[in-house]
Amino acid sequence: MTVTRDGFLGGRVTLAQPARGFRAGSDAVLLAAACPARPGETVLDLGCGVGAAMYCLGARVQGLRLTGVERDAEAARLARANGPAEVIEGSVLDLPPALRLGFDHVICNPPYFGATTAPAADPARAAALREAAPGDLARWIDVACRRAGPKGSVTFVARADRLADLLGAMAPRLGGLRVLPVAGRAGVEAGRVIVRGQKGARAPLSLLAPFVMHAGAAHESDRDSHTPQAQAVLRDGQALDLG
Amino acid sequence: MTVTRDGFLGGRVTLAQPARGFRAGSDAVLLAAACPARPGETVLDLGCGVGAAMYCLGARVQGLRLTGVERDAEAARLARANGPAEVIEGSVLDLPPALRLGFDHVICNPPYFGATTAPAADPARAAALREAAPGDLARWIDVACRRAGPKGSVTFVARADRLADLLGAMAPRLGGLRVLPVAGRAGVEAGRVIVRGQKGARAPLSLLAPFVMHAGAAHESDRDSHTPQAQAVLRDGQALDLG
Repeated sequence: MTVTRDGFLGGRVTLAQPARGFRAGSDAVLLAAACPARPGETVLDLGCGVGAAMYCLGARVQGLRLTGVERDAEAARLARANGPAEVIEGSVLDLPPALRLGFDHVICNPPYFGATTAPAADPARAAALREAAPGDLARWIDVACRRAGPKGSVTFVARADRLADLLGAMAPRLGGLRVLPVAGRAGVEAGRVIVRGQKGARAPLSLLAPFVMHAGAAHESDRDSHTPQAQAVLRDGQALDLG
Repeated sequence: MTVTRDGFLGGRVTLAQPARGFRAGSDAVLLAAACPARPGETVLDLGCGVGAAMYCLGARVQGLRLTGVERDAEAARLARANGPAEVIEGSVLDLPPALRLGFDHVICNPPYFGATTAPAADPARAAALREAAPGDLARWIDVACRRAGPKGSVTFVARADRLADLLGAMAPRLGGLRVLPVAGRAGVEAGRVIVRGQKGARAPLSLLAPFVMHAGAAHESDRDSHTPQAQAVLRDGQALDLG
């Protein structure tokens, strides 16, 4: 397998990842930026891939104890090589009994496509993108809520069209839900959504102003057209302010 | 009871409503603008108050057959006086058996506050603002879905913090959900949300760019600071484009 080494957060984080198949991108960086971890806390990354989200989070917040779970053996191997996290190779839906409970924070960039979607041609990419069975997103959220501690946070990034599924599974279990639409351009519908909640919290849901990735109307040269807010998060490693 | 006569849609619609208590405002106008009714179709307004939403809709689309349901006797009387709708005085949760099924469109601006919220001092205002029991929002959505025809649309406007409750009740029954955040200013969290779905549709959920009510950062003189998109809807009577 060909492996590339790619920089994240303006080069603060370098990750080895397969040249083909599922590759980490801005979703993982945004997920890391949305997690309210403080120094020394524990973080669980469900479906961590090669570790992009948890290592970007670790680059922003000092002294975190990171744990990742990844089903794909090669991705799990690379995640171990990419940094100091404890990486468990296995299914999120079948975690080892010995895995601790009570994480301060759980983050997750789950498989994006419903189980009825046709699988991608590449098997590893298909496994990363596609739910194994209908309702898996709700089951992943259930796992996240059970592994988070009494005041633990749970943060998911997903395709925006999964918003009802996300809220349906998170609202009964978490309070203080913050919904952040992520839009490619100002004025267009969101492509992604980040939803964060906290166990034991009672604050009402907030539907936040969109996080806009690119300036201008054109879709050319997206790489050079990041908005100042996107640059601050993707390149400078700032946290996302969800209030 | 003192009654005022107030103009909507730049004076296209004039409504008598109580000087005190619950008074129709921009929420009703936005709700009307979000309903995709075409000339000659049937529309049911659940909790119509004095008829603001259905009469604003009737002013934009010719030849609609409008039906409103309102529990408050005085509001129902005014709704009848305000225009040509058939107005049924009674509870949305106890509709008369004779009321037709299969409406082309159902619109609803439901009571806004959860049943645990302290009631407003004014009884009529309290009844309009406050749910009679927990879960009433889901029950209103159930009524709306049952009264809409096979391809009928269902549109609700509500406080943004009810988004999870709205989607939880609408997603199992409706397809093509369109979620429109309504924000007072650009860059701030949404105060209201409009959610529209269609029976029998299979399109995925869309999380739309926010509809922004006021330009600039200040909260002074809101009336004179409407954005061009808000002016087009509130004053010029244009439809909201939900895609």
